[in-house]
Amino acid sequence: MGLEFKKGVRRMEHWLTKRAYLTPDNIAIELSNGETVTFAKLYEKACEFASKIYTVHQDGHVAMLSNNSIDMAVAFWACTYLNVPVVFLNTRLTAVEWQTQCEDADVKTVICSDQYKEDTQQLTLKAYAFSEIHSFRPTECTLITDMDLDLVCSMMFTSGTTGRAKPVIQTYNNHWSSAIASALNLGLMSNDKWLACLPLFHIGGLSILFKSVIYGMPVYLLERFDEEKVHNALMDRNVTIVSVVAVTCSRLLERLADGYYPSSFRCMLLGGGPAPKPLLEKAKEKHVPIVQTYGMTETCSQIATLNEADALRKLGSAGKPLFSASLQIQVNNTRAKPNQVGEIVVKGPMVTTGYYRREQANKESFQNGWFHTGDLGYLDEEGFLFVVDRRSDLIISGGENIYPAEVEEVLLSFEGVQEAGVTAVEDSKWGQVPVAYVVTVNEMVTANQLLAHCREKLASFKVPKQLYFRDQLPRNATNKLQRHRLRS
Amino acid sequence: MGLEFKKGVRRMEHWLTKRAYLTPDNIAIELSNGETVTFAKLYEKACEFASKIYTVHQDGHVAMLSNNSIDMAVAFWACTYLNVPVVFLNTRLTAVEWQTQCEDADVKTVICSDQYKEDTQQLTLKAYAFSEIHSFRPTECTLITDMDLDLVCSMMFTSGTTGRAKPVIQTYNNHWSSAIASALNLGLMSNDKWLACLPLFHIGGLSILFKSVIYGMPVYLLERFDEEKVHNALMDRNVTIVSVVAVTCSRLLERLADGYYPSSFRCMLLGGGPAPKPLLEKAKEKHVPIVQTYGMTETCSQIATLNEADALRKLGSAGKPLFSASLQIQVNNTRAKPNQVGEIVVKGPMVTTGYYRREQANKESFQNGWFHTGDLGYLDEEGFLFVVDRRSDLIISGGENIYPAEVEEVLLSFEGVQEAGVTAVEDSKWGQVPVAYVVTVNEMVTANQLLAHCREKLASFKVPKQLYFRDQLPRNATNKLQRHRLRS
Repeated sequence: MGLEFKKGVRRMEHWLTKRAYLTPDNIAIELSNGETVTFAKLYEKACEFASKIYTVHQDGHVAMLSNNSIDMAVAFWACTYLNVPVVFLNTRLTAVEWQTQCEDADVKTVICSDQYKEDTQQLTLKAYAFSEIHSFRPTECTLITDMDLDLVCSMMFTSGTTGRAKPVIQTYNNHWSSAIASALNLGLMSNDKWLACLPLFHIGGLSILFKSVIYGMPVYLLERFDEEKVHNALMDRNVTIVSVVAVTCSRLLERLADGYYPSSFRCMLLGGGPAPKPLLEKAKEKHVPIVQTYGMTETCSQIATLNEADALRKLGSAGKPLFSASLQIQVNNTRAKPNQVGEIVVKGPMVTTGYYRREQANKESFQNGWFHTGDLGYLDEEGFLFVVDRRSDLIISGGENIYPAEVEEVLLSFEGVQEAGVTAVEDSKWGQVPVAYVVTVNEMVTANQLLAHCREKLASFKVPKQLYFRDQLPRNATNKLQRHRLRS
Repeated sequence: MGLEFKKGVRRMEHWLTKRAYLTPDNIAIELSNGETVTFAKLYEKACEFASKIYTVHQDGHVAMLSNNSIDMAVAFWACTYLNVPVVFLNTRLTAVEWQTQCEDADVKTVICSDQYKEDTQQLTLKAYAFSEIHSFRPTECTLITDMDLDLVCSMMFTSGTTGRAKPVIQTYNNHWSSAIASALNLGLMSNDKWLACLPLFHIGGLSILFKSVIYGMPVYLLERFDEEKVHNALMDRNVTIVSVVAVTCSRLLERLADGYYPSSFRCMLLGGGPAPKPLLEKAKEKHVPIVQTYGMTETCSQIATLNEADALRKLGSAGKPLFSASLQIQVNNTRAKPNQVGEIVVKGPMVTTGYYRREQANKESFQNGWFHTGDLGYLDEEGFLFVVDRRSDLIISGGENIYPAEVEEVLLSFEGVQEAGVTAVEDSKWGQVPVAYVVTVNEMVTANQLLAHCREKLASFKVPKQLYFRDQLPRNATNKLQRHRLRS
């Protein structure tokens, strides 16, 4: 009644239903082959898909295993109409990794693109390919009309220093708040078209799907980063915004050569670490508007951004926290002074409500309402964020996160390996690649054996590019491995 | 802890603090005399003002009595830093009306522009003029850093068919959600500048202050609608959006004559009833982008809008409900069919949480989570809203709401008046003006006496422009006054 009726509960008409009502004939998704789908059609397809998976999805969560496609977007929205959380699996992982993640996230059913149907036979779970589901008969079922924004919408895995990947909860409110905060930062133009070449199973990709529906904006969807396709889309397909990582950004600028993007192209959103100065200078010279960002799965993408105007003046900065987000540097749980390095902590409606069923991790990560990122950084006098070190020893290789502890665990599981340390080396193509240092009990263990073992257990991008045998590894007084000293 | 830490509580860094941190040097407010104030300065002034009213505001709410000015904006933001709800008084009301509203809204202190200081001496409350407050010594006090979005930010009075004006509660979340929904509809351009010529004590004016701070956009603030000043601002001061009502819109188009607004001017946001066809046709011819809206104090401004593209195709429509808002037509609490006229009910985060201390009114207005507007309308097959009748007999005169019942009450309070009925007649300047029909016990009562009585009790825009004596007034079977039949 009046005063009370809205406290605590946050409901909203289903975004896709609403969008299909507001602008039915506008393009929702456009592919490089010219195929498009309107919001009305996307809505219709999602509802139909929902009525077809209704009987198979059972209780529990649904895992999604697919590369970017219209089918994947349809299947995702279908799940939202059934209020079923979607657990996104990285297609580059091994079946062993998928199995573990499905178990950790209470997945009962897997939905996959036809390409991965065979691979899913290694799982103990029932998996359905898109084409199978399309052939099902629709079931009479009630699709939700209002979203409860506090419910879980999606989960994505992220590791930490502990090795085992953790499922990050992303609520509808997280996604909503992220889309809104981004719009307040980048603006919202009626001709906007956002190119997505990051996988939808990463937050950098998925967040664009939400923006599309909430803003009423077309997504130009590519299956993966393809230099030629992205370049052509920027030149000829009226794309106004593209999300990239440093490696792909640099390749695009090289491809651009002596040309210029059309003036309607207004934002190259660069995530995953600061851009090197030569890249920024080149971008400036070519009038490419680079907006650097800092974000992570736990913040549902961007939480801080550096606008083009400050890019060279604040070289290496990730900018300022978005409207509605708060960010502090803390040292021993107190706020640091300007320029003092400490842990980056964040707060805001786009920040995850926690890791799924990881009480200990949640206890460690959330303190006094602040989410502790594990990243080190400082704020300068003007409040610009500088990230000094991403989450202790995180390796970012071509936009993918590699957690050394996870690779070390696999190495240590091989009989005869006593110690293992993994660290990054610079790589001109991928930015960074992992290399491993191991101590074995005798000389019977070979590098080839170890790498074969890794390839069996790990996604290929996580397999060390080099492997070195050592007598001992650098450790500190408390015997903690000092990964930054491995290479010396 | 993780999963729980965000349920129910919605907090955000204070918007002005955050804005002053993000874009300190950008213009917050611009006046027609060229004076400007940046966000950093506005923040500084608001904090200073807060420290000066800290000791005088006591408990209870603060009433604001002022016409548009930078001081008024500063005083408003100052109150938000003290978490004191601001009750906006319409400067055009009489002291008697102010007094009643202050009592109804638990006001303990009045803040006014110097112009109204003398008038406030008729109130039983202590009132402070801006210049007095500026001369106070600042007090050491704690200003809030985080807003609790569920708290009351402001109150504005609105009447109903019952006559006595009711204080509408507007929470921070209402204002936030309104600003966001508007941005999702109109877009957000980096060069946006919004001209406010509606009073800040109306939601149509105040909502622009929030948009300014949340978007980081300058407001071009006029004390009142002044055809010449608005015209010049649109022509020469890079204004991109202006909020108007039908009367002012028509005067602006006349003033425009054979000219054209610059192409950067992108939106004439028209509230307070549908635009007549000749006006829309003229606007089209002059390339003036008119966006019609439907909204009210209880929805914190717009809740539905008709975009320019549909203006002539859907003549007379108020468009579709904004993203995040829901709207239905209900007949006997069930959803109406397309084209069926019923009551317009709305839901969404921008809808008031209720009338302050009006339990009965809240019981009547909120049913199953829907706010009943009292307005009649229908949705066509495509879902476009057509408002048939604003809140039983509401008169809108130059953008001001006049509730017949309130004027009738004043007429009836005069000795010798037996019955009174007030209705609207069309007026070329104000859109509508009120006229009165009265039945007296004998012929001793004159029109002049009655109008003098009205002028004493009512704001001048509410005083009937004509007064007719009748032997009886049209009533239905249950003896309810039929205002729509008064003129026949």
